[in-house]
Amino acid sequence: MADLDLLSIRDLLVSIAHKAGTMITTAHPSTSTSGSKKNTADLVTETDRAVEAMISTSLHAAYPTFAFMGEETYTPGDRLTDAPTFICDPIDGTTNFVHGYPYVSISLGLAVGRVPVVGVVYNPFTQTLYSAVKGEGAFLNQSTRLPLRDPTPLALSNALVAVEWGSDRSGNDLAVKSDTFRRLCAAREERGGMVHGLRSFGSAALNLCAVACGSIDAYWEAGCWAWDVCAGWVVLREAGGRMVDANPGNWEPGLDERRYLAVRAGEGQKELIEEFWGLVEGRFEVGP
Amino acid sequence: MADLDLLSIRDLLVSIAHKAGTMITTAHPSTSTSGSKKNTADLVTETDRAVEAMISTSLHAAYPTFAFMGEETYTPGDRLTDAPTFICDPIDGTTNFVHGYPYVSISLGLAVGRVPVVGVVYNPFTQTLYSAVKGEGAFLNQSTRLPLRDPTPLALSNALVAVEWGSDRSGNDLAVKSDTFRRLCAAREERGGMVHGLRSFGSAALNLCAVACGSIDAYWEAGCWAWDVCAGWVVLREAGGRMVDANPGNWEPGLDERRYLAVRAGEGQKELIEEFWGLVEGRFEVGP
Repeated sequence: MADLDLLSIRDLLVSIAHKAGTMITTAHPSTSTSGSKKNTADLVTETDRAVEAMISTSLHAAYPTFAFMGEETYTPGDRLTDAPTFICDPIDGTTNFVHGYPYVSISLGLAVGRVPVVGVVYNPFTQTLYSAVKGEGAFLNQSTRLPLRDPTPLALSNALVAVEWGSDRSGNDLAVKSDTFRRLCAAREERGGMVHGLRSFGSAALNLCAVACGSIDAYWEAGCWAWDVCAGWVVLREAGGRMVDANPGNWEPGLDERRYLAVRAGEGQKELIEEFWGLVEGRFEVGP
Repeated sequence: MADLDLLSIRDLLVSIAHKAGTMITTAHPSTSTSGSKKNTADLVTETDRAVEAMISTSLHAAYPTFAFMGEETYTPGDRLTDAPTFICDPIDGTTNFVHGYPYVSISLGLAVGRVPVVGVVYNPFTQTLYSAVKGEGAFLNQSTRLPLRDPTPLALSNALVAVEWGSDRSGNDLAVKSDTFRRLCAAREERGGMVHGLRSFGSAALNLCAVACGSIDAYWEAGCWAWDVCAGWVVLREAGGRMVDANPGNWEPGLDERRYLAVRAGEGQKELIEEFWGLVEGRFEVGP
């Protein structure tokens, strides 16, 4: 990796993100023209496929030896290797996109040795760009360093927590989610976390960037994929945030672990993770 | 009401909303400087109080005979009357505001005979303004008529649904919420609604406006107050949306019912409401 020019790669990803943004904001998707994948809550549109094709073609032209993993061309059994790999989601928040809700992003990451090292996340509707390179810090719109405010100490009872219901809608993992959401909310007398609030915005990549900004204290997720988190993970880490497993006990989840807990910068990060894990009801089965 | 100039009142509310917006975007709240009301998840800041004072003073100067009901000056037992009443929330989304998350609004409404007739909802961070006057339609930024797209037919299994956990964190009503959220999400095999997605953004007024836009299909809520819904209700209704009770069976909830189900314009509105009610687990106790 020593000879990779990560800043140039970041610049390329930023230019691709803007190009993808134009494709996304000029599209006219709807619930009646979208298709679905594993079930009726797992949506895909022609725009997802066209944007991914543009991204992979552009990246292959510039870095022909690098591997590529994208949401729309992934096939079950594909595994991440140590090779430099672009890990991309053409539209993170496809359900919002289909419904015309402007919380949508393009998520473009590079991992080397399975470690995320460059990340660009762009919401083309609000023209908000998050970017980060390993060791170089994280930025909003390439000018404002993250986090946006000096971090106050963390405490679960003061926390604003992002969670997502996702598209897995039965069995153990749905029960772990819904039981844990309720417990996070519940009053102390009901053995709950009494957090300030739970939010569900519908884009994993933007959620990670909100944690990097410091406006969300923690984001807990299971079921999403490497392309949902690779880019945002760099932004998070470069802003002083930390990523651990959504299941209690694993402090070093892999990029393709599919279970994540992201916590913002601030005093008490480790203690908040331990307190959060203490409220998880059961264990997720989803994994790499 | 025949002699009230509702368009002039709308214009005044718009100008007050912009003034309030400047107070809000220049404030520097934090979790360490905010206070709480009924519990630690029910937040208030100096900015909420200062903005409400500015709003009520401005409205009283222009309309000295009208009543006023605001979140920060409400006292238990205050009841809505048939008199023209400004019903205002200086900051809807105080928890987001305290955390620096820019999904926050000023909600300024007028009710006459307990019916919402003028509504202005303004997000000062995104400079997004929703406004509506009874019989005159609903608008985004005073120029684009709502809904934003021609409404497609409604179906619960295609729906993007907004819900909020709120600040009531124990007992029956928390159970009704969390059990119903799970059932809305769950697969058909688990007797669920298998909706496209559940979202929790943290502002009732902006949620109602998102339903008016058509980007959210339905918003189900209990525990919030007349000042959270009065302005958004006008925007919703003028965009062809409908408001019913969050508890099944009541098609005509009062402004202070504290339980609401908002559904966007579109064919199948009544059927979606009935299907939604069929998935509500239990009944809310909260009420006027």
